[in-house]
Amino acid sequence: MIYLDHAATSPVRPEALEAMRPYLTGVFGNPSSRHTAGEAAASALEDARARVARVLGMRPGDVIFTAGGTEANNLAVKGIVLGVLDTDRRHLITSPIEHESILESAAYLERFHGVEVTRVAVDENGRVAPDAVAHALRDDTALVSLGHANNEIGTVQDAAAIAAAVGRVPLHLDAVQSAGWLPLAGLGADAISVAGHKLGAPKGTGALAVRGRVPLEPLLHGGGQERGRRSGTENVAGAMALATALELAEAEREVIAAQVGALTGRFITGVLEAVPQAVATGDPVHRLPGTASFTFAGTSGEAVLLELERRGVISSSGSACAAGSDEPSHVLLACGIAPEVSQTSVRFTFGREPLPEDAPERLAALVADAVGAVSG
Amino acid sequence: MIYLDHAATSPVRPEALEAMRPYLTGVFGNPSSRHTAGEAAASALEDARARVARVLGMRPGDVIFTAGGTEANNLAVKGIVLGVLDTDRRHLITSPIEHESILESAAYLERFHGVEVTRVAVDENGRVAPDAVAHALRDDTALVSLGHANNEIGTVQDAAAIAAAVGRVPLHLDAVQSAGWLPLAGLGADAISVAGHKLGAPKGTGALAVRGRVPLEPLLHGGGQERGRRSGTENVAGAMALATALELAEAEREVIAAQVGALTGRFITGVLEAVPQAVATGDPVHRLPGTASFTFAGTSGEAVLLELERRGVISSSGSACAAGSDEPSHVLLACGIAPEVSQTSVRFTFGREPLPEDAPERLAALVADAVGAVSG
Repeated sequence: MIYLDHAATSPVRPEALEAMRPYLTGVFGNPSSRHTAGEAAASALEDARARVARVLGMRPGDVIFTAGGTEANNLAVKGIVLGVLDTDRRHLITSPIEHESILESAAYLERFHGVEVTRVAVDENGRVAPDAVAHALRDDTALVSLGHANNEIGTVQDAAAIAAAVGRVPLHLDAVQSAGWLPLAGLGADAISVAGHKLGAPKGTGALAVRGRVPLEPLLHGGGQERGRRSGTENVAGAMALATALELAEAEREVIAAQVGALTGRFITGVLEAVPQAVATGDPVHRLPGTASFTFAGTSGEAVLLELERRGVISSSGSACAAGSDEPSHVLLACGIAPEVSQTSVRFTFGREPLPEDAPERLAALVADAVGAVSG
Repeated sequence: MIYLDHAATSPVRPEALEAMRPYLTGVFGNPSSRHTAGEAAASALEDARARVARVLGMRPGDVIFTAGGTEANNLAVKGIVLGVLDTDRRHLITSPIEHESILESAAYLERFHGVEVTRVAVDENGRVAPDAVAHALRDDTALVSLGHANNEIGTVQDAAAIAAAVGRVPLHLDAVQSAGWLPLAGLGADAISVAGHKLGAPKGTGALAVRGRVPLEPLLHGGGQERGRRSGTENVAGAMALATALELAEAEREVIAAQVGALTGRFITGVLEAVPQAVATGDPVHRLPGTASFTFAGTSGEAVLLELERRGVISSSGSACAAGSDEPSHVLLACGIAPEVSQTSVRFTFGREPLPEDAPERLAALVADAVGAVSG
C-alpha cells in the first residue's frame, strides 16, 4: 500500500516516540507539583516549549500546548474574540475555505455571542487577496483568522502580505497543514496553530502560540496551567514529541519540500496527461509541496478512491473530517466549482519519506486506470 | 523515594503503554478516514469506547474521549448548561469544594452567559447533604455538578442519594479522583468525568460520558468527531490506554481498595498518635481509600513537605493545580478551617501498588519527624 493521505494524518516518527518514552515511564510527575518528581516534568515541558517557540518564531511564553489542531484553532478563534468582547469588538474575519474547526468556532461565536463574521471570498484557486482582507476590516474587528495552507487543495496564502494588510488587528494563522512544509517564523502572525499528528508527533498533541500582548480567554478553565491560558495537567510526553517532530521537520524542511514538491509536480503533470477529464484544483504555484488534488468530472470521487485502494493507493476525497459526508466540499464550492463536479474530487497528499524515482509516473498511471474503471 | 502524591498523577501502567503501542506505530490511520488505514483506527477507537462505557455504566455512544479530566469537566459544565441555554435554564448547582475546572467553568458561565450559580455548602468533613441539593433546585436549574470524591481531602459524596434528590435535572459527577477506587456504574449520574493519568493511563487522556438524552453544546467545534460532541482527530492510542487502565483498575478495585484503605487507615492513626497537633481533614468514614490529609497547626505545610522529601517521602500541600499558590485551600476554607490552619495542610495519596507491611507506621514516624523538624 502507498499511503497518500498525509494531510489526514501521518505516522509517528521514531524520534518523536523516543522523545516521549521517559515521560511515559520514569519521569511521570505532574509539572505543577513542587516536588522533585514534578520539577523534572516541568523542566522537560519548558524545554519543549522553547523548542516549539523557536520554530514558530515566537517566545516560549507564547506557546500553549493543546490536544491538537482543532483545540488550537478553537482557542485562537474563540479565545481571542472573547478576550476583547468586553470592549465591544464583535467582528471576526475569516474565509469560506477554512477548516471546520475555524468555521464552526466562528459559527459558535455568532450563535452565542452575537459576533459578526465576514468570510472574505477566495479566487478560483483558493487564494485570499490581502486587499480584500484590508477592505473587510472594521473598527470593531477583533481577529482575522485564516489558514496558512488549505487542507483540501493545498493552496498557500500570502501570509506576510495579509499580516501587513491587517495592521494592528491580531492575525491568527492556522498552520496545521503548512507546519513542517513552509517557514512559519517571521510571517507577522500574532497566533499560530499547529497539530502534532500531521508532522510525525502522535494524535492528541498540538500547540497554539499567541503573542503575549493579545488578550486570550481560555477555552479550558481550571487549575491555571500554561500561564492561565489552558488549564489541565500538561501532556509532557506529547509536548516533547511535538517539539521533536516540529524541530526535525524544520531542520529538513527546505530539502524535503524541494524533493517532494518536484515529485508531486510530476505526479500532477502525469495525471493531467493521462486522465482526459482531470482538472487540478487549488493554486498551481502557491501550493503545499505534497498536495495534489483533482476533480474527475463524470466520476464519483468515492468510487475512484475505492478503485485506487484496490490498486494499492490510499488517498482521500477531501478532508478526513468530512469523509463519509455526502455534502460537496465547502472549499471547492467556494472556489466556484459546481457541486456535481466537486463530488468527483480526489486528494493525494505525499509524506516526507522518499518514494522510488519512478513513483510519480507509476502513480499517475494507477490513477488513470482507476478513473477509467469508474468511468467505463 | 516513596511517592505519595498519586492524586496529582500516577505512573503509566505497563499494560496501558503496551495497549498504545500499535496505534503509535503501525495502525496510524485517521479514524475518520474511510480507507483501510482509517478503519483499523476507527475499530480500535470503538473498542476502547465500549470498554470505557462498561466501567462507567453508560452506553458506548455516551462516551466522549477528551484530553483529560479538566476538558471533561469543562465540557460537562459548559456543554450541558449551554446545551439548554435557549430554553432559558440559566441556573447551575455545584459546591464550593469542587476542583478548579468545575468552579472556573461555572465562573465563566456567570461572566459570559449570565448563568446563576448556587454553591451548596458542605459540612466540616466536606460532605454535601442531598437535601441541601434538593433545596437548591429551581425550575430553571440546568445542571447539578459535583465531585464524587474530593481531590484534596478525599471526602466521598453519597452520589446515589444526590442523584435521587435531583430528580430529572441532569447530574454530572466529577469522578476524576474516584475512578478506579469506587464503583461508578449505577450511581444514577447523567454525566461522568474521568482522567487517564490518575489511574495509570498517560497524561492527555480522559473521557466524559453523557447520556444521549442530555443536550450538549460542544467545547471543541469542528469536523464533528465523537458524534459531533467533541471535534478533533481522535487520540486512538490514548483512548486504548485509558480503556485498558480503567478496565484493569475496575477489575482489581475491590481488593486494592480494601488493601490500600486498611494501610491508609493505619497511617492516619499513626500520624494522629505521633504528631500532637495533627488533625485529619475530610470525612473519617466516607473517604477515598488512598487519601490521608492533615493540618499540622503551628507549622507551614510547604515546610513539612520539604522536610518529608528530605526523608524520602513525596507528598503535597493540596492539589497539584494549586501548588505554589499562596492562597489557602478553598476546600479547607469551605470546611470551616481557619486560613492560617489551612496553610499547614499536607496530603498523602497512596497508589495501587503494594507497600511493605510496616510502611504505614514507618511513614507515620517520618511525618512526626518532619513536623518536629519544622516546629522545633
